[in-house]
Amino acid sequence: MGLEMEVMSEAAPAAAREHGLDIYPLTRYYFGARDAAAGVPRGLETAADRALRLKANFAAHGLRTSVHGVLLVELFDHPHLLLLQVRNSSFLLPGGRLRPGEEEVQGLKRKLSSKLSFVDDDQAIEEEDDWQIGECIGMWWRSEFEAIPFPYMPPSFRAPKECIKLFLIRLPMSRQFIVPRNMKLLAVPLSQIHGNAQVYGPIISGIPNLLSKFSFNVISD
Amino acid sequence: MGLEMEVMSEAAPAAAREHGLDIYPLTRYYFGARDAAAGVPRGLETAADRALRLKANFAAHGLRTSVHGVLLVELFDHPHLLLLQVRNSSFLLPGGRLRPGEEEVQGLKRKLSSKLSFVDDDQAIEEEDDWQIGECIGMWWRSEFEAIPFPYMPPSFRAPKECIKLFLIRLPMSRQFIVPRNMKLLAVPLSQIHGNAQVYGPIISGIPNLLSKFSFNVISD
Repeated sequence: MGLEMEVMSEAAPAAAREHGLDIYPLTRYYFGARDAAAGVPRGLETAADRALRLKANFAAHGLRTSVHGVLLVELFDHPHLLLLQVRNSSFLLPGGRLRPGEEEVQGLKRKLSSKLSFVDDDQAIEEEDDWQIGECIGMWWRSEFEAIPFPYMPPSFRAPKECIKLFLIRLPMSRQFIVPRNMKLLAVPLSQIHGNAQVYGPIISGIPNLLSKFSFNVISD
Repeated sequence: MGLEMEVMSEAAPAAAREHGLDIYPLTRYYFGARDAAAGVPRGLETAADRALRLKANFAAHGLRTSVHGVLLVELFDHPHLLLLQVRNSSFLLPGGRLRPGEEEVQGLKRKLSSKLSFVDDDQAIEEEDDWQIGECIGMWWRSEFEAIPFPYMPPSFRAPKECIKLFLIRLPMSRQFIVPRNMKLLAVPLSQIHGNAQVYGPIISGIPNLLSKFSFNVISD
């Protein structure tokens, strides 16, 4: 465990008790790849097709709710966030859209399994992968499907199109992550993400701020 | 209560139960002024004097811990943050530095009373003003006294000089705020603060993100 972590817990014993978060070294995890699921990967969809799909879904089901997981590992004495990267460009949090009527925690487990495990979307539900879904740490709103999201409901939003919720995931001491071949799973230091909306977008770049109340306990062996 | 607030609670009933936050209209509160306390107001201190004072304090007491209150009111169907403004320029959260050995919640109550109530620094302790101090929502660190703060402990920090903690304050339905004449108390919409680090600084401009998990219940009468 690094010196700065010890300093942190001495400085804030009350917060550490309330908001402690165990994280494990990156080396505890195994990373593999598998073939992508059949069908057009969403990342390769044209903008026009995507707009049509989202519009049809909104007409049928109303407000879209997306759920995403914040997964952390330790490397070089600093917390790193696990991000998916599609085609060497955009960064994504693992997660995705809930099905109509689907419960949030159950839907997030399904999405995490489909993005980070062997199982595909439907198997995941039956397998009940052992994701530990923690608290909701942030919530963003979009007025239109492709609009910039805001971390509050602006007074002008009468019918928001999408709600994006971030949940803290408590990882076990060890596990494997199996990622579709069209994506990469990266561990990015919080210090690189913080305030860097140009590269990571407004939601991801605000995650270090959302995590700031936590005292990280690095369990190194 | 505005339409957008209702939409928010319908969209996220689970989150609303976990993270509901009652806020009251600005018109419920009374704002007054009083003479500033004796001595040089910190806002008018020269940079050199401030550097000397902080250095001497660090030598004597080590890591400086500052505690600040996040106070919210409703106006135009949108949450507004209460900020102090000194000399028409910099914006501050009400709060300040803990005394050596002082407990955080007690220290924040003392600071809120000295900035926002009739009482001065020392009376406040005895009067036990009725501030309801809620959870810590964020924590920032400075490597040097005047350095840019970060919402995490960067790996290079071996001995941070300051820890800044933000606590959510649950305001009563009505109360009075009495502010020293050299300051102004302003209610600023979250939509104006979000991402606006140039005007509000990195800590305050990240507060809408920290509050995003909360569903605001506007209690309008």
